Amino acid sequence: MTRTAAIIGGGVIGGGWAARFLLNGWNVSMYDPDPEAERVLAEVMDNARRALPGLMDVQLPPEGTLVFCGTVAEAVGGAEWIQESVPERLALKHEVLAEIQEACSLEAVIGSSTSGFKPSELQEGAARGGQIVVAHPFNPVYLLPLVEVVATGADPAVIEKSRDILSGIGMYPLVLEKEIDAHVADRFLEAVWREALWLLKDGIATTEEIDNAIRYGFGLRWAQMGLFETYRTAGGEAGMRHFLAQFGPALKWPWTKLMDVPEFDDDLVELIAGQSDAQSGHMTISDLLRTRDNNLVAILRALKGQDFGAGALLVAQDKALAAGTELAAGVDGFADLSQPLLTLQRAVPIDWADYNGHMTEFRYLEAFSLATDRFMEIIGCTKDYIAAGQSYFTVETHIRHVDEVMCGAVISVRTQMVLGQGKKLQLYHEMYEDGRLLATGEHFLLHVDLASRRPSEPSAEIVEAMARISDAQAHLGYPEGAGRAIRKPA
Amino acid sequence: MTRTAAIIGGGVIGGGWAARFLLNGWNVSMYDPDPEAERVLAEVMDNARRALPGLMDVQLPPEGTLVFCGTVAEAVGGAEWIQESVPERLALKHEVLAEIQEACSLEAVIGSSTSGFKPSELQEGAARGGQIVVAHPFNPVYLLPLVEVVATGADPAVIEKSRDILSGIGMYPLVLEKEIDAHVADRFLEAVWREALWLLKDGIATTEEIDNAIRYGFGLRWAQMGLFETYRTAGGEAGMRHFLAQFGPALKWPWTKLMDVPEFDDDLVELIAGQSDAQSGHMTISDLLRTRDNNLVAILRALKGQDFGAGALLVAQDKALAAGTELAAGVDGFADLSQPLLTLQRAVPIDWADYNGHMTEFRYLEAFSLATDRFMEIIGCTKDYIAAGQSYFTVETHIRHVDEVMCGAVISVRTQMVLGQGKKLQLYHEMYEDGRLLATGEHFLLHVDLASRRPSEPSAEIVEAMARISDAQAHLGYPEGAGRAIRKPA
Repeated sequence: MTRTAAIIGGGVIGGGWAARFLLNGWNVSMYDPDPEAERVLAEVMDNARRALPGLMDVQLPPEGTLVFCGTVAEAVGGAEWIQESVPERLALKHEVLAEIQEACSLEAVIGSSTSGFKPSELQEGAARGGQIVVAHPFNPVYLLPLVEVVATGADPAVIEKSRDILSGIGMYPLVLEKEIDAHVADRFLEAVWREALWLLKDGIATTEEIDNAIRYGFGLRWAQMGLFETYRTAGGEAGMRHFLAQFGPALKWPWTKLMDVPEFDDDLVELIAGQSDAQSGHMTISDLLRTRDNNLVAILRALKGQDFGAGALLVAQDKALAAGTELAAGVDGFADLSQPLLTLQRAVPIDWADYNGHMTEFRYLEAFSLATDRFMEIIGCTKDYIAAGQSYFTVETHIRHVDEVMCGAVISVRTQMVLGQGKKLQLYHEMYEDGRLLATGEHFLLHVDLASRRPSEPSAEIVEAMARISDAQAHLGYPEGAGRAIRKPA
Repeated sequence: MTRTAAIIGGGVIGGGWAARFLLNGWNVSMYDPDPEAERVLAEVMDNARRALPGLMDVQLPPEGTLVFCGTVAEAVGGAEWIQESVPERLALKHEVLAEIQEACSLEAVIGSSTSGFKPSELQEGAARGGQIVVAHPFNPVYLLPLVEVVATGADPAVIEKSRDILSGIGMYPLVLEKEIDAHVADRFLEAVWREALWLLKDGIATTEEIDNAIRYGFGLRWAQMGLFETYRTAGGEAGMRHFLAQFGPALKWPWTKLMDVPEFDDDLVELIAGQSDAQSGHMTISDLLRTRDNNLVAILRALKGQDFGAGALLVAQDKALAAGTELAAGVDGFADLSQPLLTLQRAVPIDWADYNGHMTEFRYLEAFSLATDRFMEIIGCTKDYIAAGQSYFTVETHIRHVDEVMCGAVISVRTQMVLGQGKKLQLYHEMYEDGRLLATGEHFLLHVDLASRRPSEPSAEIVEAMARISDAQAHLGYPEGAGRAIRKPA
């Protein structure tokens, strides 16, 4: 049965939560008294639908149903997860949490998006304090995996459920067992923010120069390894202790002004806002948001290609999504081998599209390669088989581009085995968006020994799997689009 | 004539500078009294050769020549740029700068890698203070573009030369006109470092948790937009002023401990080093360095695909490298149209390789697509032509995989036009590493009207360019590998 999350308070953060739950197949009941709430959420959903599904290499579950509710009680009624994202005023949070607890299930988890308040402050005076955790996400909530779960004072079962549910929607719950003002990440952001204000106020650098100092330098390091693993590499072969010995004394130097806070007066606001306008004013906020999401998707998918950092989280989420479906099964897991097998089903990601939003030429072959890899897995040429020294190499490929497809569309590839005998494997892929044929890919592969890089005979298991598919698919005949060549000009 | 840089002081930073200059075609004269200097540099060069050339979509100039010198005077003799990277002790820096200025050209620029000292401190007592700037890079110097150029007290000509030379080797010189301890970026790093030490000492989070809080959250944002452009988007449609109004009051909250510095005693060092061992000790430093470089290359190339941030710098550098060569010319720029035209020449980047370091299947088509794009440009189907509403679409592709190629290898594609008549364009690409044939790509394209997405006649300019190539290449005949199909199984 589809699970339900209640989102109390919309805006960019509440909207981002709603988008993440909906696109991961949860129903969402939303309560937000702001008359603009539906419009704001629709915009967040547009951006999220564009960016999130394509991050995955398998299809997300069908989008859940969104309901706007007139009261808190109505919204939280059937919810397993309740996310509070109202403005940062403690009295207001207490009021809303009380309303939630009057109506919600005893089994539900109540997460607060607060960036500043500690669980003990939120739990104070609550009917059931143990049901409440801080679940502090990062904007855009539908793309960034981090969520700080500060769980002091919460029931152990609530903490466990928080981990499960948040991981299940593709997040990384960083569970903190001691509470502190602003949790962890925002303490860093606050430190950097204070230092940045001084640099602006003292005329050392502009907003654009500060952004460049970050994104052309340590920002690139932090996107993958963070602080300590980066510094570990800086110590060279001597490692962390050597690095610490070098860096330690710098703490005595006058390298920050953070002991002090600049006066946040109108002059400073105007200075910052004016420089920011000069830097980014040529783009609308909605263009900036799309650009940000395009960049984040591209970076996340780059890290996915390296199976590292946030990319490794995505690889794991793909596996979890595919588990138990035909997209993860061996030859025995298919109910029907007699039709072309489903070897790929996914949304076209942003980084596969050209500036017009169409999937670019070489990504068709990327999709067919993924389908070929999947077919190899089905017949038993798995990661372990390859690690043990044998695989298939593609020798020849023929692609027909039949129709175009847009970024975000769900494409699927179905694969007929034209030949699977001895060393030879001949596949015919058809790529569809719904019923619309987009392209065909014909591939001739040879089984090879990875040590000698020479053709070799596949395992008995593979031979047998190919025989089963060959028998089952024999009735399909030779595909109409196969065996074609680009003709010699007259 | 090949230009020369002198690198005074090796290690990770000096070595990174040497690698960046050498791989961008400069000769390097190195002085470093450390007996390990040659070995350390060889390791840095290995990593840099693996990572940097493939960042580019055109080939870098031939690698320069490296000479180890026995004295500072010998090293700086013919150098246009002199980079000092000796340990951070002011007296030592003064000594080395004096030695440099005794022997170097009056026209040379002397850059110091210092992270802490201000130009005024370095220039104090110098023979020609105006020749000295701070040029503070970020590790790994051969990949990260940022270099802080603090130029107070320097001659205007020296500042201009700094910009030119550093941009020329693919860096982003952030020229600061006011000096301050630790310049800009390291002030942020120091602020974050202090806060991190408190979080560790107080047992709030471990080194791994802190790294995760960064790399799964704001680190991803900072890799592309930095601080202020990110916050601008957080303000929603109301923009920066709205954001500032929300964030301002937080400055009064107790969100950082930065007013205070923790005691950097043995206990704290052991705590950090122990947690870092637990987090990353399963990898050697050399594995970590490779992983870091793999990730950075993947992220940088992802941003290049979006033409944004550090990726936009790379796009610009590609253009500058190609300018004036056949790789940027139209049909008139080719000395000889009678042979297959050079349409691609580049190193295989890290993100094109599988875990074994071989170029993966679909990247062959990516390379051929780039070659096709380049051929289109040659005949006049340029970016402007496409923006005006017409282009070519690939309809059919046939690839033969003949041999494998490793990451880092320089591949080139040469293109024969088999047919270029009316709407039809038929290309035959051959991909080589030196003389070794790796693959062939045969492509049938149609000229299309981008509004109707239907075939249309190309411009007169394109028709004429195709006719010229057709005449010149007629003697080549129909390529031996063209017109082939994957055969129907017997």
